[in-house]
Amino acid sequence: MDLTPGRPDFNILRVGHVEFRVTDVERAREFYVERLGFVEQARDGARLYLRGYEERDHHSLVLRRAPSPGVGHIAFRVAAEEDLDHLEHLHRAHGLPVRWVRDEEAAMGRALRAQDPSGLPVEFYCHMARVERLLQRFDLYRGAFVMRLDHFNCQVPEVEPAARWYQKALGFACSEYTESGDDPPRLWAIWLHRKQNVHDLALMTGTGPRVHHAGFWVQDQLSVLRACDILAAAGLAGSIERGPGRHGLSNAFFLYLRDPDHNRIELYTGDYLIADPDWTPIRWSLNDPRRATFWGHAPPASWFEEASLVESMVDGAFVPTRPAGMRDRPDFVT
Amino acid sequence: MDLTPGRPDFNILRVGHVEFRVTDVERAREFYVERLGFVEQARDGARLYLRGYEERDHHSLVLRRAPSPGVGHIAFRVAAEEDLDHLEHLHRAHGLPVRWVRDEEAAMGRALRAQDPSGLPVEFYCHMARVERLLQRFDLYRGAFVMRLDHFNCQVPEVEPAARWYQKALGFACSEYTESGDDPPRLWAIWLHRKQNVHDLALMTGTGPRVHHAGFWVQDQLSVLRACDILAAAGLAGSIERGPGRHGLSNAFFLYLRDPDHNRIELYTGDYLIADPDWTPIRWSLNDPRRATFWGHAPPASWFEEASLVESMVDGAFVPTRPAGMRDRPDFVT
Amino acid sequence: MDLTPGRPDFNILRVGHVEFRVTDVERAREFYVERLGFVEQARDGARLYLRGYEERDHHSLVLRRAPSPGVGHIAFRVAAEEDLDHLEHLHRAHGLPVRWVRDEEAAMGRALRAQDPSGLPVEFYCHMARVERLLQRFDLYRGAFVMRLDHFNCQVPEVEPAARWYQKALGFACSEYTESGDDPPRLWAIWLHRKQNVHDLALMTGTGPRVHHAGFWVQDQLSVLRACDILAAAGLAGSIERGPGRHGLSNAFFLYLRDPDHNRIELYTGDYLIADPDWTPIRWSLNDPRRATFWGHAPPASWFEEASLVESMVDGAFVPTRPAGMRDRPDFVT
Amino acid sequence: MDLTPGRPDFNILRVGHVEFRVTDVERAREFYVERLGFVEQARDGARLYLRGYEERDHHSLVLRRAPSPGVGHIAFRVAAEEDLDHLEHLHRAHGLPVRWVRDEEAAMGRALRAQDPSGLPVEFYCHMARVERLLQRFDLYRGAFVMRLDHFNCQVPEVEPAARWYQKALGFACSEYTESGDDPPRLWAIWLHRKQNVHDLALMTGTGPRVHHAGFWVQDQLSVLRACDILAAAGLAGSIERGPGRHGLSNAFFLYLRDPDHNRIELYTGDYLIADPDWTPIRWSLNDPRRATFWGHAPPASWFEEASLVESMVDGAFVPTRPAGMRDRPDFVT
Repeated sequence: MDLTPGRPDFNILRVGHVEFRVTDVERAREFYVERLGFVEQARDGARLYLRGYEERDHHSLVLRRAPSPGVGHIAFRVAAEEDLDHLEHLHRAHGLPVRWVRDEEAAMGRALRAQDPSGLPVEFYCHMARVERLLQRFDLYRGAFVMRLDHFNCQVPEVEPAARWYQKALGFACSEYTESGDDPPRLWAIWLHRKQNVHDLALMTGTGPRVHHAGFWVQDQLSVLRACDILAAAGLAGSIERGPGRHGLSNAFFLYLRDPDHNRIELYTGDYLIADPDWTPIRWSLNDPRRATFWGHAPPASWFEEASLVESMVDGAFVPTRPAGMRDRPDFVT
Repeated sequence: MDLTPGRPDFNILRVGHVEFRVTDVERAREFYVERLGFVEQARDGARLYLRGYEERDHHSLVLRRAPSPGVGHIAFRVAAEEDLDHLEHLHRAHGLPVRWVRDEEAAMGRALRAQDPSGLPVEFYCHMARVERLLQRFDLYRGAFVMRLDHFNCQVPEVEPAARWYQKALGFACSEYTESGDDPPRLWAIWLHRKQNVHDLALMTGTGPRVHHAGFWVQDQLSVLRACDILAAAGLAGSIERGPGRHGLSNAFFLYLRDPDHNRIELYTGDYLIADPDWTPIRWSLNDPRRATFWGHAPPASWFEEASLVESMVDGAFVPTRPAGMRDRPDFVT
Repeated sequence: MDLTPGRPDFNILRVGHVEFRVTDVERAREFYVERLGFVEQARDGARLYLRGYEERDHHSLVLRRAPSPGVGHIAFRVAAEEDLDHLEHLHRAHGLPVRWVRDEEAAMGRALRAQDPSGLPVEFYCHMARVERLLQRFDLYRGAFVMRLDHFNCQVPEVEPAARWYQKALGFACSEYTESGDDPPRLWAIWLHRKQNVHDLALMTGTGPRVHHAGFWVQDQLSVLRACDILAAAGLAGSIERGPGRHGLSNAFFLYLRDPDHNRIELYTGDYLIADPDWTPIRWSLNDPRRATFWGHAPPASWFEEASLVESMVDGAFVPTRPAGMRDRPDFVT
Repeated sequence: MDLTPGRPDFNILRVGHVEFRVTDVERAREFYVERLGFVEQARDGARLYLRGYEERDHHSLVLRRAPSPGVGHIAFRVAAEEDLDHLEHLHRAHGLPVRWVRDEEAAMGRALRAQDPSGLPVEFYCHMARVERLLQRFDLYRGAFVMRLDHFNCQVPEVEPAARWYQKALGFACSEYTESGDDPPRLWAIWLHRKQNVHDLALMTGTGPRVHHAGFWVQDQLSVLRACDILAAAGLAGSIERGPGRHGLSNAFFLYLRDPDHNRIELYTGDYLIADPDWTPIRWSLNDPRRATFWGHAPPASWFEEASLVESMVDGAFVPTRPAGMRDRPDFVT
């Protein structure tokens, strides 16, 4: 398997933001702002703009009022405005739908919305208004001390072609990957990064295209435990789906939460630095129990079965899903 | 329900030590000493004597080579030698078997071994040799940084009479308790203390008499997480049975482990101080999911079903068990 | 030196509460409630009543508006109402002034205010209204997560007679003590406890009678670091006087803060359990640099020189101070 | 001040390793390996090769036996072998001495040793043997859980030209910087990075060229506190020079230690991600007390005055130092 990245003529920097559909903005606000401590930056008609304490960009999480849950788009920041034009050209050359967006989301310049080969709605943008970073406003810290958006995890029926697009066409590098137990083994999931940690984007075999979760960085393990305590004290223990625990793959300490609309987020901390372009990807077997949770805890079935539908970049309707092209979970699910 | 303690003419101070039967002392040593970081104080023929970094007494955990797992005895320290005589008298007056022990366990003075009304083998002693406390020998800390023995938890078929013995006859005070959902409610489990935290002894409805676990105090939540990491790294992830998590009852952060012989210990931290004799016990319902794990995680069935057989104080054979006199678990077990 | 406690005919349970004089209640409230996260329980005319998340009593810290800083009284809880009568008798028998107080402080029954032999204003009480414990209301936790009042530390010119009173007359036990480098060595400071940790009351050589600080228990080391971050972020870095660090004596992790009126509190965690009445007190030398801060950091001179004047139990005026009867600090002060 | 980086035709990836001169390798080993928990990877005649648990390269710290303390060289890793040739050309073009090294240090390919314009001995290399990463060998973790080398900090008499070299010629980007209180303000120190956190190299005004310290990443704040505890318990409290505390500049939680030869290292954690090339550098004033330690603690004079002499790349003799071209410390040093 060739895991080396391509060298495109544009520069995707990092994960940027995600837009979640929520049916009740106030209820979602209570979960994200009051309990988890996301910074509430702004709101307009149907949208609430949130971010972490470390972030200098206007927002990394948009909650948009909608009749049903789901994901509007995931977004990556690029280094320069002209990178967006290169990306438009690339997508058109591959027959992938694109659309320019302006003044739809607050605080942003122009953005290119594209549908990736798996059907995921991906936005690229360079400009977002800067706001005051609150990293050292410890007097304002609340909840889980959410620092920044870290990554997206998406389910697609076929990981291999999806991964090839991000690696070869978009220049993502592979940090770790999971192979099935088939003979020969098949690529079951892959962790891809542009910034220098384990991932900006993970692709996982499953019914798709769907966004499985958005991962947010918290500053330490105790922040993860505190999130559990706070949610349970507030009567929201039901939002805890999996964890806390340590991932084998990525080494991160994690917690998976379902917001009141069942959109899923991960609180995530303690993976590692990858500053070397010649990093050798780490291989895991799907059925290695330490892969999912290093301590051996089995994930619940819901974690494999449930994920967020995504909006079509073209018409805003949900993109139809197809079932996984191979088994969608290890043997040891509870 | 009358939860007030009696006022006996002796003074039981606190939990003292526990003797686990292990089939392979070296394998047990690897688990307790190499991985969890218990201090190895001494060994003689069939016994390994361990303790925590905070303890000044010679040992709090004895691993005794035996053909099968189980518990030899649990032990409480009393304030004065004459307290032992009072305790002998009390047990004899109630027709409970007692036996004086001397020179059987290293570093101890005379000890009174008694069988409590439920059939549990309980030792009382005043004298144990003092050794150097290692609390500030941080250069020696290893593993989970085990500080001290904190409590015992035992399963008995009928909690109410068992609890009455410890409260009225032995002077234990109740910190928290659990009632069944029956009408009228019945006492399902009780947490009893002599030292000033939540418990020295918990009694829980179940097949018994059996020792469910011995709880050891660690200094913080990260020590519990570190124990998971270390055990998993050493190929012992299978020893993790339940947790890490936070108990609703007691508020403690916990982890349940099974040693290589399936004897169970708990790593435990962060309950609270009870310095007031007029403390009002906290009542929980068996089926309140926050009682067991505040975050809502269901305990595994093994946690209710499996526990250690105990030796008869009289002949060393295992005390026969009887099934629980009422349901032995809540509805939400996995 | 005889360090064994007497056996009085009353039972002092533990540290109860302290009353600080503050010149600006709102400014003090910002420090204690907004920044450190003390629970604001009630207020009446001149007083604000605060407590920690673990406490079930109405208050452990009273902020009383006054024209200058200082301490109104320190208070201990006793086990029974009649203990107060015994204490009245004891003080009168020693010619020490006493006064019964009722309805002066909110939520309390009758209280005995007494002047101890060093001139410290000490209150004893049994009844205080119970309020909802917030231990598991993690959604309300703010600031340093202050759990409970832990101890008082007072400066007196002569520690030995002061200590004798608390040990022999009041039944306090010694956990640790400090001797001067004189030949023969003299008692420089002593840590005395009724509840089962290192102290309810420390007595230290210095200009006195003065209250040096009130110590509040926080749940872990990170709570102490977080307090520093929050205070600095809020422009209150000047309130940090000493630490964070680890004490050699007591082993606790600590931070000393000066409130806006320069009354001093300590955030304190991680000492140890003393459940044995035959505990052998630990001896330290005044000039052992690890005694004060285990890591070797020298305390600032202000820590030895500055402390709160105390009100006379008789007329409310400040009790005149006398200089220390021996050196009031080690050699290594900065 | 122009803080934008140049765009050289080579790619320096990150900090690589540092060579400390030590007069007693066994004594140094006790400090680094036994106490702080560095991984001992290999040793040959005069050198001990150490690394952190997260590192896959053979070593990041070399301890070389020498008659006096000091620094042999600091080293950066480049992306490709030909980058080294470009760097040779660059240095020669600027009249800076270079030398090719091979087989001098274990496990390395060819390396280019150069003298930077300030006289610092800087090595560039691409190849170092890979070893097993121990990130998930939690059973082997000891001491401060040192993860990886993070940065170098060097003192030079004139920061501005030194910084210009690293920015414009070598392509380092500025994250934060400090200006003097002069009118107009002068550049007093600068934090420069290639990898995506606050720095790979800091340059600070002072007697120079000298290496002030090498910073090593630890995984959390408690690892820093644990290092203090361990060192003090082992009788090495004297090695603690400054901290623990939080830096205002960089936001990192820190501790400065002096090894038995007085070479200085920093334990460092909790700065932040810089994945955006258009990051706006953060400006600090030299006399802002929150800059050095956010909580207001003043650094000791030794921290500004003492640093390691560096070997000449040409003849191995120490490079002569010149005094700082402007004041070398803020007003608030203790």
